[in-house]
Amino acid sequence: MLKRGEDIIKVRVITENEGKAKEFIELGRAFGISVEIIRAPKIEIQSEDLREIAMYSAVNALTYVKDRVIVEDAGLFIDALNGFPGPYSSYVYRKLGVKGILKIMDGVSNRKACFKSVIAYAAPAGSVKIFEGVVYGRIALNAKGREGFGFDPIFIPEGESRTFAEMSVWEKNKYSHRARAFKKLAEWLRTAFKASDTHT
Amino acid sequence: MLKRGEDIIKVRVITENEGKAKEFIELGRAFGISVEIIRAPKIEIQSEDLREIAMYSAVNALTYVKDRVIVEDAGLFIDALNGFPGPYSSYVYRKLGVKGILKIMDGVSNRKACFKSVIAYAAPAGSVKIFEGVVYGRIALNAKGREGFGFDPIFIPEGESRTFAEMSVWEKNKYSHRARAFKKLAEWLRTAFKASDTHT
Repeated sequence: MLKRGEDIIKVRVITENEGKAKEFIELGRAFGISVEIIRAPKIEIQSEDLREIAMYSAVNALTYVKDRVIVEDAGLFIDALNGFPGPYSSYVYRKLGVKGILKIMDGVSNRKACFKSVIAYAAPAGSVKIFEGVVYGRIALNAKGREGFGFDPIFIPEGESRTFAEMSVWEKNKYSHRARAFKKLAEWLRTAFKASDTHT
Repeated sequence: MLKRGEDIIKVRVITENEGKAKEFIELGRAFGISVEIIRAPKIEIQSEDLREIAMYSAVNALTYVKDRVIVEDAGLFIDALNGFPGPYSSYVYRKLGVKGILKIMDGVSNRKACFKSVIAYAAPAGSVKIFEGVVYGRIALNAKGREGFGFDPIFIPEGESRTFAEMSVWEKNKYSHRARAFKKLAEWLRTAFKASDTHT
């Protein structure tokens, strides 16, 4: 964690998702990074690869933020559905909801799934870096819980019996894909900023 | 149709979808437009609006084709699913197939749906134009036919009892969203090229 007297490293996160914003602020606290949320839309390309989507969005955001910025793209990948809904999770959530996924998964015995998060960091000096986090688990038989957002009510991480939506932000951050990606970002930022006093 | 001696108007169509390529070539013949297929990937943004996706792709394609170019984006919009799969139809087709949609639609009595097509035309002189076509119909109870591509086996256009996949390219082009958009493009091109001898 951050030592007293050390400069606070600040990053701007572009997101319009209040659930994500809440998690990022909490993650910033946990890892000693000052997180500023910029509630702006981001341009996202269509791709089955979260890394491509996130990198493209980050570089695009850099052109108007003009300072170091991160964007995150995440998705729920269900084994039995060839990775669906994947990068289109938020769209599928808006259209079909958790009920739609439970209907598609009705009678499907292989419930394996994972949440993936990709954080793309872009800085004016020209660096773009990717940090990935994954949490494995399974699709619940029924939706449970009211915390979190998106498909949290139907995802049970490995080693747990509760869904993400049955956990507080703090608890979810112990397991979550987003927390794992953010931890890597925080460690890299700390090393990078120690190596350079110019802070760019 | 084209009169003898008149200049052939040529457009390049960017697509990697062989089914679309076949339809565009046939449409070019029907409307007297010379269609050249460029089998290249196109950059597509994420949006619920086909027009935004197509315009963005066309302008992007223009930067490397350097000549007038069209891209098309299409989707199947199912009423009971709030328009799903919409702009993500090809992704959803690859992941869930027609069986997946039939499973989501199991027991749903409102089977209304439409196919929408948006053709975006971009020219170096700086014009971008949008042409839209829609065909209304319903989701079949079972998949039928082997023609066409994508969700054609489960879409029955209004006034028909057969799915798009039970029709030849020529027959489908009598009804299809893509044919309706292309017809508008062809009419506009003919007027625009008549008005200008510079052909830009």
